[in-house]
Amino acid sequence: MASGKILVAQGGGPTAVINQSLVGVTLEARRFRNVELVYGARHGVRGIVNEDFYDLTQETSHNLELVANTPSSALGSTRDKPDIKYCQEIFKVLRAHQIEHFFYIGGNDSSDTVSIVSLEAQKAGYPLRCIHIPKTIDNDLVGNDHTPGFPSAARFVAQAFAGANLDNASLPGVYVGVVMGRHAGFLTAASALGKKFHDDGPHLIYLPERTFVLEKFLADVKATYERFGRCVIAVSEGIHDASGVPIASLLAKELEHDAHGNVQLSGNGALADLLCEEIKSKLKIKRVRGDTFGYLQRSFIGCVSDVDQREAREVGEKAVQFAMWGSCDGSVAIRRTGSYSVDYELLPLEAVAGKTRVMEDEFIASSGTDITDAFRLYLRPLLGSGMPDAFRLRAKPVTKLMNR
Amino acid sequence: MASGKILVAQGGGPTAVINQSLVGVTLEARRFRNVELVYGARHGVRGIVNEDFYDLTQETSHNLELVANTPSSALGSTRDKPDIKYCQEIFKVLRAHQIEHFFYIGGNDSSDTVSIVSLEAQKAGYPLRCIHIPKTIDNDLVGNDHTPGFPSAARFVAQAFAGANLDNASLPGVYVGVVMGRHAGFLTAASALGKKFHDDGPHLIYLPERTFVLEKFLADVKATYERFGRCVIAVSEGIHDASGVPIASLLAKELEHDAHGNVQLSGNGALADLLCEEIKSKLKIKRVRGDTFGYLQRSFIGCVSDVDQREAREVGEKAVQFAMWGSCDGSVAIRRTGSYSVDYELLPLEAVAGKTRVMEDEFIASSGTDITDAFRLYLRPLLGSGMPDAFRLRAKPVTKLMNR
Repeated sequence: MASGKILVAQGGGPTAVINQSLVGVTLEARRFRNVELVYGARHGVRGIVNEDFYDLTQETSHNLELVANTPSSALGSTRDKPDIKYCQEIFKVLRAHQIEHFFYIGGNDSSDTVSIVSLEAQKAGYPLRCIHIPKTIDNDLVGNDHTPGFPSAARFVAQAFAGANLDNASLPGVYVGVVMGRHAGFLTAASALGKKFHDDGPHLIYLPERTFVLEKFLADVKATYERFGRCVIAVSEGIHDASGVPIASLLAKELEHDAHGNVQLSGNGALADLLCEEIKSKLKIKRVRGDTFGYLQRSFIGCVSDVDQREAREVGEKAVQFAMWGSCDGSVAIRRTGSYSVDYELLPLEAVAGKTRVMEDEFIASSGTDITDAFRLYLRPLLGSGMPDAFRLRAKPVTKLMNR
Repeated sequence: MASGKILVAQGGGPTAVINQSLVGVTLEARRFRNVELVYGARHGVRGIVNEDFYDLTQETSHNLELVANTPSSALGSTRDKPDIKYCQEIFKVLRAHQIEHFFYIGGNDSSDTVSIVSLEAQKAGYPLRCIHIPKTIDNDLVGNDHTPGFPSAARFVAQAFAGANLDNASLPGVYVGVVMGRHAGFLTAASALGKKFHDDGPHLIYLPERTFVLEKFLADVKATYERFGRCVIAVSEGIHDASGVPIASLLAKELEHDAHGNVQLSGNGALADLLCEEIKSKLKIKRVRGDTFGYLQRSFIGCVSDVDQREAREVGEKAVQFAMWGSCDGSVAIRRTGSYSVDYELLPLEAVAGKTRVMEDEFIASSGTDITDAFRLYLRPLLGSGMPDAFRLRAKPVTKLMNR
């Protein structure tokens, strides 16, 4: 057909840098002589079915650069997970508009969507090049050293805990910070990168990769509180008991599920409040505070990793290059090639779609409540330049005159 | 006595710039020939009673500058509110160490403390110069155009809502963000400074200066949701019903009070969860999310107003200058002298202590759920330079071929 039309869309939870990938696709595609039009679908696959497109060819490069630096999905997003019927609707629209290339920027669920669309296109004999572009603050895509969006969210979490630790040192007590991450603890583990001095918090880190036992948790908190006179705790929203039941759902009255069958863990403060209540009542500690970082950690404007920005732009550019010069569908993946440098490859969609990466054992300390130096070395370069730093007074204590 | 000893301490909730004031006092005092020693009390007035002092004269100016740029009280803080007995204990220690000047950096409650200590010193005939240095993210000190710490917290809130709005536009629904501020709505109102386009959120702002009526709230949310297909809401933790009962306490099982008789409003997600539950059940809107900004808004490292930093440093310097060249106790206050410039004055302690400023009527829109341009003009210069900005795609919609 050679219509020269490409379509790009964004799916799943927004990130601080997902628009870099959108602009990477758009500007790179506009460089190709055989690309006549670049369409953007509003709100992911739903925008395809609804025939709701922007013509990104009619957008200045200047404004695209400004949008690239703006967090959250500029095209809008969706949580829809297309089944075969949904995909047939997608085809009808793609066919009508003679779309040749479909680029979908998203995480786990979106890679699954691309995989289904690709398969359905093949079955229908429709010549559609489908490329999945990685994005997720959870860092849970297999085959990737890390995923765009994660470094900026990790930076937010590290900075948040650096500040919370200073606050807690000033007015001592117990502080619980609940971090996003349904199955993978990477983002919660990033809290450790906010530590500087040996007695800084987070003193305890609870990841979904390890079974959460309330009695053990309380014993850990008690021991830490006795040692430091305070305790800062990082908890993943995805912590669960031995049978896999989320601790959060033990409290929630009515579980909300999305189209992918996922229970809603974010968007309420239940887990933090439950844990604080347990600490107050069982350990008799008076000053116990809990924060749920919620949507701030993925959408806060003004906390971004420059490394993440660059890479998010590059995965978009590479997606177009793989599509134009390659001959198969796939998922763009980040490979680490040095300390610190990366390169990109195109993985088969089935190698990524619907799979979930969790934290490798080498990243989790044997205690189960801390991370290892291997994780520190892994994450530090991703956080980018200009990380804020915390300093302490080193003044000498004054000799007591009254023996108080 | 002419011992040449001064004492500085920090009280109340930490801020992003409270150490600027500490370092302002320390470095300025060290310039005076008659100041021999600068002591810092650990954890506010409690550190005085416990005779727990650092000798800040033995601290390099380089490290002091690094500490100045670190958020949260470097000396540690306290919520203690000294009564007469407590003050007598303070005197015993001050007398033993021959302290001549007492600088206390803090908010409402701390100014009250300084006032009591000053009064007790006079009664006891003890020659103590007491200066209160303003600090509070709540911006609720009377006699001040604004208070150090507020601009940086306001910047965090504005940036948080700018991001939350983008997130909500991407995946539409209702978003409730709960902001600190027991009696004064300044910090919640700062959420409006994150708006850029006319349909941006926060679409509704609920302040403690106005009575909160649940039915009216639900009607507001419904109307906004119907108009924009989404709704971003900023809510002060201090919202209350007509009889003054905090809405948060309608949910809390066990109210926690501090030494000043204040109910604990922060440190749990109850209010956001309550409001979200009401919206879900009464308005039948599925995607409803709530975040409680909690301690992030006052302690996040890396989100600070440069204007706030400069002024926080200056109130510390001015406190020493007022003490050395003046002849009375008082509270340093910020006066706005231009758009934008400030000067400082020393107010009588009784003019500030124990009083609470709330938002002026001219800052609140007649709807009661928005702020005025007067407030925008008031707050904008305080947020400082380099505020992040959000941009949108302006591409043309593609003509539909299938009439979907």
